[in-house]
Amino acid sequence: MVVIIQKNAKQEQIDRFIDWLGQYGLQVHLSVGAVHTILGLVGDTSRVDADLIRAMDIVEDVRRIQEPYKNANRKFHPENTVVKVGNTYIGDGSLTMIAGPCSIETEEQIITVARAVKAAGATLLRGGAFKPRSSPYAFQGLGAEGLKMLLAAKKETGLPVVTELMNLTQLPLFEEVDLIQVGARNMQNFDLLKELGRQPKPVLLKRGLSSTMEELLMSAEYIMAGGNEQVVLCERGIRTFEGYTRNTLDISAVPMLKQLSHLPVVVDPSHATGIARLVPPLARAAVAAGADGLMIEVHNDPARALCDGPQSLTPEVYEQVAGECRLVHKTLFGKAVR
Amino acid sequence: MVVIIQKNAKQEQIDRFIDWLGQYGLQVHLSVGAVHTILGLVGDTSRVDADLIRAMDIVEDVRRIQEPYKNANRKFHPENTVVKVGNTYIGDGSLTMIAGPCSIETEEQIITVARAVKAAGATLLRGGAFKPRSSPYAFQGLGAEGLKMLLAAKKETGLPVVTELMNLTQLPLFEEVDLIQVGARNMQNFDLLKELGRQPKPVLLKRGLSSTMEELLMSAEYIMAGGNEQVVLCERGIRTFEGYTRNTLDISAVPMLKQLSHLPVVVDPSHATGIARLVPPLARAAVAAGADGLMIEVHNDPARALCDGPQSLTPEVYEQVAGECRLVHKTLFGKAVR
Amino acid sequence: MVVIIQKNAKQEQIDRFIDWLGQYGLQVHLSVGAVHTILGLVGDTSRVDADLIRAMDIVEDVRRIQEPYKNANRKFHPENTVVKVGNTYIGDGSLTMIAGPCSIETEEQIITVARAVKAAGATLLRGGAFKPRSSPYAFQGLGAEGLKMLLAAKKETGLPVVTELMNLTQLPLFEEVDLIQVGARNMQNFDLLKELGRQPKPVLLKRGLSSTMEELLMSAEYIMAGGNEQVVLCERGIRTFEGYTRNTLDISAVPMLKQLSHLPVVVDPSHATGIARLVPPLARAAVAAGADGLMIEVHNDPARALCDGPQSLTPEVYEQVAGECRLVHKTLFGKAVR
Amino acid sequence: MVVIIQKNAKQEQIDRFIDWLGQYGLQVHLSVGAVHTILGLVGDTSRVDADLIRAMDIVEDVRRIQEPYKNANRKFHPENTVVKVGNTYIGDGSLTMIAGPCSIETEEQIITVARAVKAAGATLLRGGAFKPRSSPYAFQGLGAEGLKMLLAAKKETGLPVVTELMNLTQLPLFEEVDLIQVGARNMQNFDLLKELGRQPKPVLLKRGLSSTMEELLMSAEYIMAGGNEQVVLCERGIRTFEGYTRNTLDISAVPMLKQLSHLPVVVDPSHATGIARLVPPLARAAVAAGADGLMIEVHNDPARALCDGPQSLTPEVYEQVAGECRLVHKTLFGKAVR
Repeated sequence: MVVIIQKNAKQEQIDRFIDWLGQYGLQVHLSVGAVHTILGLVGDTSRVDADLIRAMDIVEDVRRIQEPYKNANRKFHPENTVVKVGNTYIGDGSLTMIAGPCSIETEEQIITVARAVKAAGATLLRGGAFKPRSSPYAFQGLGAEGLKMLLAAKKETGLPVVTELMNLTQLPLFEEVDLIQVGARNMQNFDLLKELGRQPKPVLLKRGLSSTMEELLMSAEYIMAGGNEQVVLCERGIRTFEGYTRNTLDISAVPMLKQLSHLPVVVDPSHATGIARLVPPLARAAVAAGADGLMIEVHNDPARALCDGPQSLTPEVYEQVAGECRLVHKTLFGKAVR
Repeated sequence: MVVIIQKNAKQEQIDRFIDWLGQYGLQVHLSVGAVHTILGLVGDTSRVDADLIRAMDIVEDVRRIQEPYKNANRKFHPENTVVKVGNTYIGDGSLTMIAGPCSIETEEQIITVARAVKAAGATLLRGGAFKPRSSPYAFQGLGAEGLKMLLAAKKETGLPVVTELMNLTQLPLFEEVDLIQVGARNMQNFDLLKELGRQPKPVLLKRGLSSTMEELLMSAEYIMAGGNEQVVLCERGIRTFEGYTRNTLDISAVPMLKQLSHLPVVVDPSHATGIARLVPPLARAAVAAGADGLMIEVHNDPARALCDGPQSLTPEVYEQVAGECRLVHKTLFGKAVR
Repeated sequence: MVVIIQKNAKQEQIDRFIDWLGQYGLQVHLSVGAVHTILGLVGDTSRVDADLIRAMDIVEDVRRIQEPYKNANRKFHPENTVVKVGNTYIGDGSLTMIAGPCSIETEEQIITVARAVKAAGATLLRGGAFKPRSSPYAFQGLGAEGLKMLLAAKKETGLPVVTELMNLTQLPLFEEVDLIQVGARNMQNFDLLKELGRQPKPVLLKRGLSSTMEELLMSAEYIMAGGNEQVVLCERGIRTFEGYTRNTLDISAVPMLKQLSHLPVVVDPSHATGIARLVPPLARAAVAAGADGLMIEVHNDPARALCDGPQSLTPEVYEQVAGECRLVHKTLFGKAVR
Repeated sequence: MVVIIQKNAKQEQIDRFIDWLGQYGLQVHLSVGAVHTILGLVGDTSRVDADLIRAMDIVEDVRRIQEPYKNANRKFHPENTVVKVGNTYIGDGSLTMIAGPCSIETEEQIITVARAVKAAGATLLRGGAFKPRSSPYAFQGLGAEGLKMLLAAKKETGLPVVTELMNLTQLPLFEEVDLIQVGARNMQNFDLLKELGRQPKPVLLKRGLSSTMEELLMSAEYIMAGGNEQVVLCERGIRTFEGYTRNTLDISAVPMLKQLSHLPVVVDPSHATGIARLVPPLARAAVAAGADGLMIEVHNDPARALCDGPQSLTPEVYEQVAGECRLVHKTLFGKAVR
């Protein structure tokens, strides 16, 4: 950490400041220049509150050199973390295939989709019961009833399930859920993250709509600091000025997060674009970039022929894209999909 | 609402779709062009789920003409909403002055600051007890203890108080709080918004870090749809590429939100920039742009001389900026500050 | 195009406006609603000035339904455009491999790199002679001298060359250049685009730092409107809040641009991230997403061991990534690289 | 400047690097930590190429401490720069009022508007002859003919004039123009900036659509490095996710730029929002924030009653807003407007 001292600071103030820094057990290196005086703080600075230091009246600015996350940092944990979810593993070199509908609508629907995606090679079933919607007038999900339908589909197919938790009072309902999803809009709901850190289930943490990778890793750090190290990172598109796609898939986040952290990284190409036609090329791209898994929306509702989620694939298209993705994965990384 | 039909849609499908739209009680106007066929939906479309329609297989795109918010919309509620907070009013033409420290540290500190800002003309006391911090290692606020100190300062000075609620389990602690703040990171914590809609206290809703005004108004709509119409909007800076300031104060949001909505609008120049020196010019600008109030961080801690929030003013500077703001307000709007 | 009429507009004004629209030869459909009156303009609206209409005092807003670009639009030109560059083709189903150094430094350097990338399968040589730099104190490129060195490398290896033109007075120097590059910062230098539309050489048009795909296609339209239809689009990363990478590669732009337009799309993973380690995974991802080609920085300077472009690959790494990319391309699209 | 050394760098490499840095005449301070080794470079680093250093194979990252601009930096030039434009001054404590139409349409129009804005207190006339438009099918301005009309209005009213130059071949046409405008899309057209640095007329430099203040100051530096120090900075709104306004006026840029630099800062509220109704509150806000001047679009075309620029004011509204702005300026800064 580098602290830039205000031009007009007195030596006495600087000395008091260096004394005060002693509490953190850091070495302090002083560089006096013509324009600026700089302090280099050497040691473990992850627990230093940069905002507090920036607030000192003799400080002009603070620049972190070391990343502010520690448990999530590959520098201190070089081995890949492998997260066990039900009977499957994420981050072990295989390609995890998460699939299912955006919203759970009926028990029949979720079981039908679950069977179809299992047949196409999916290893984890997704389905939304509690739905965060930007309008209070939009469908908010079936809630606890939907969760029961999802668990029926789990029982029926044997697929482990992942679904979103929207607030910490819902936790008791999630006992049979295998992987708890934190949605993009809750990525910085810190009280929720703390609570998830104190329970043992693995967590799928979605990147916020305009969050940086560092903020995503700091949110993972919240969970890990509580004792739960079973975190899966999910890139699902960020907000940009581009209007032709709903979000912009940050494909660079895949190799970059894997370099910065030991946690597994999965990609959700369905939410990233909001357009079903773009899901197959982006799913293939995510695999080619080294993602540990894919989370894809698949819908099947022959009774309501008119209506199909704009970002959902039919089971037939899903089967094809899953096959292409396995092919790319095998070609590049030479491993069978679990 | 305008629905653009896919080029290859069959007449029969279009007819079925028009029938289906009948459930909303809308008039449908059909325009058949060489390249596109367009349906104009006329009537109250605020309860129509645009995503569901976009999902129809014969639909290319949907464009809203009418705003998706209704309770918050000035078109359906031309008069200004005036929010009563303790013994003061926000949105009645006066200039509301909210001031206080970022974090409550001790009872002595909060009472000292409360007295100082009251003397400088503040009408509402702010102070953080529950603090959302991006790092789990940063100071998280004094919590329930801090809240008690804030209420002691209320009792001591008579100033009504505003403070942030971070999750819905905290609500019982807020009985004596006059105005409940929803922080920027919780602007789309929809379960929290719904809960606040079911209780009677006024809510100060801060704009999310990269939220649009429409999203802010939709979050207000969540609260209002539950029956609580006492919402104050707060512009506190949005995320942009600019790095010299922490956020970018969207000054246009002041007149634009007041045109779109009947709800009062206050501005927080402290969080908007993160730099104390910029607070006075931005506070004056907010008043000149027509804001109903200002929320400014003021800190006073002579015992810890080294440390002062980078975005906090001393009581002396606050007194000066408050005076300038009242002067601008009186010059332009000819009204005394309540 | 949909025109939303102001609530208080008089019928007489609306009638005059509809008459005035007659000049564009459009059909006008009128929908009168309780809150809004809407005009649907049906026909070729690409030459209608939406800003001019928005400026009418009876108009509240204008929404385009049809894309504002015509020559670049796949709807009016369903076949892929294949661009001939020297003895190679871009957009014919093969994978175009553009490679070379960021800056041309010496004739020896550019010839050495040219030979190395040719051996690794590159089909086009890139090298910067005129360099746009954000600081006037940074190296600005060798200019006309650099261009001569690039042409010497072309003669030596037979590879066609692409290099950036920074202003229209430089055009006479580009007689032997095979593909003229327009840089991201010049994407909306409209006078330059017009000039390039009046000359016959193909143009590689890089997407602006925070431009949308529509703006990129409108810039292509500027060139095409002048008569030159030989335009190659280049995605090179856009500005986002992410700080760990220099830009964010918009991988969705590959399939989306190819759907919207018939022009070929190449990807520059080197500029997109600014980090050499990320180039191989992103290059593979671009191919998997369907890109027509890759533009990759390769540097070779054994004499200056300390210094290597942070986003440049060595010829050895380039050879490996080129091989992987050809493998992904063949696996997915079953075509040999030309 | 702080250079972070790669973990695995050898002492010998670090020593060679420190030797190499000797060429810049900088002091080098070495801090060896458990995780990182850091070099602090002390002295004038504005001419050091950070990208070149970042490119060294032993370097992990480079952080600038000192601003990369020098001529534009207030630290090295504490006094305000006052720019003389015709018979008026920008930056001398007075409030500069620039007004006129977006596009010059006829000689009669520009003269009528010029008289009206002069009567309302404008001190500089603006009018566009060369218009950068994102569509090749939109009106591109009257060009050289328009420029003649603008100069006729200058002769008629005595007001100095400002207008945009789009490429360096147009420079000879600008002999009678008093202040040359560089548009937002040309802010990083470095060849144009260099040329303007070699000629004596003052330059009004508009901030790019998604440029940072540092990039704006670096573009000013390009002009100043050529010898022309007569630069006026113009904040005109930046691109954000907000869709209700065309751009987002960065009001913080006014006090921040004036703190960082000695150059005058004017604000263009018309382009910043694209909505005439928002111009008065934003103009007042800009003055309250300390702007040196305002650039406002005023249109007058009684013959074409239907049409009025959506962001242009009538002369009557302009007169009122100009009065309010002078009042705020006098109230806060106690100076008469020149």
